[in-house]
Amino acid sequence: MSTLESSNPLPSVITGRLRAQLTFILEVDKLKTIVRRSTLASVDRLENDAEHSWHLALMVTVLAEHSDVPIDVGHTIELVLVHDLVEIYAGDTPLYDRTAPDVQQQREEQAAGQLFGLLPEDQELRFRALWDEFEARVTPEARFAKAMDRLEPTLLNWMARGGTWQSPGVTTAEVLERKAVIADGSESLWQAARAVIQEGGSRGWSRQE
Amino acid sequence: MSTLESSNPLPSVITGRLRAQLTFILEVDKLKTIVRRSTLASVDRLENDAEHSWHLALMVTVLAEHSDVPIDVGHTIELVLVHDLVEIYAGDTPLYDRTAPDVQQQREEQAAGQLFGLLPEDQELRFRALWDEFEARVTPEARFAKAMDRLEPTLLNWMARGGTWQSPGVTTAEVLERKAVIADGSESLWQAARAVIQEGGSRGWSRQE
Repeated sequence: MSTLESSNPLPSVITGRLRAQLTFILEVDKLKTIVRRSTLASVDRLENDAEHSWHLALMVTVLAEHSDVPIDVGHTIELVLVHDLVEIYAGDTPLYDRTAPDVQQQREEQAAGQLFGLLPEDQELRFRALWDEFEARVTPEARFAKAMDRLEPTLLNWMARGGTWQSPGVTTAEVLERKAVIADGSESLWQAARAVIQEGGSRGWSRQE
Repeated sequence: MSTLESSNPLPSVITGRLRAQLTFILEVDKLKTIVRRSTLASVDRLENDAEHSWHLALMVTVLAEHSDVPIDVGHTIELVLVHDLVEIYAGDTPLYDRTAPDVQQQREEQAAGQLFGLLPEDQELRFRALWDEFEARVTPEARFAKAMDRLEPTLLNWMARGGTWQSPGVTTAEVLERKAVIADGSESLWQAARAVIQEGGSRGWSRQE
């Protein structure tokens, strides 16, 4: 896997730790090209992972008070900034996709090794730990971060009057089931999300069965 | 100024503080449509403000150790997440633009009032304070955030073999002058940025005079 930086190497006076960091920073530019299934609320085009990650981070700063337990806002933001990076090499897996989870898991593990391996070792370990924490959904910060990851496309689907709720074979009940992890982070946000999904269903923006 | 949310109001059971917060969260989706002058490193299209803000936030987590004085990483990330929001209503002002600064300042002040005014009052004040702090560049966190804001397009210009360095009338000396604020946050990052700009100039990616 060749990096973007290798196509136009930085000046040779930049060395060591900083060179590794800047190589990583250039490489993650690719997140801006990973297209998701959600349509933006503001214009009719699909969202990319970088925009999505920014939106989640801002949502954390606005909505943190709704966490059922106190959370470290800065740490929660770091989790959402990092959570989709492995998709640079592994690609996006849509929520209603039927890809075998273990295949996707294996792809993402390999991607994490390649991408975070560009960083100095201490930072490689830190980024790996942030990604693992997000995926495990055990800490309050990870639960809230995951809630944001599910809430944002719910809001975008509402604005799209359907969006990915209209994926083949998906019903209102399945949307509710896939979104229920929001309740692990915030009961009040889950109530709001459920209202959005159910009202959307009653308007025919998702299928009843 | 009508909000995106007003075109498709959220369910009426969502009220009060949370309704205001979700209206704001939907409205800032517009940041994904504000196009900058920088070309992405990964594909040949212009960057938007949401992608740029995400990139700066990630850069803070990787590069914070290079700050000349210790900084609060979480707070610095909040500054960069918020720093361009006023452009939703005021538009982007390119670095090498000749618009009168006081005209732009007035536009952005008005935009801040409109946009942050969508939030509950305590959060309106907090977002306004974050934006003011970034603009004033007095605190260590704001200085480092500004350094990221100048460093990221410098790296993108390097990858584009010129990019906005080739704006009409701009010289290598002017690029160095506009980027020198990086030194207010980090001497080592300024040394690296200067090397990138000077090496780019010597390759003809910016004009010598």
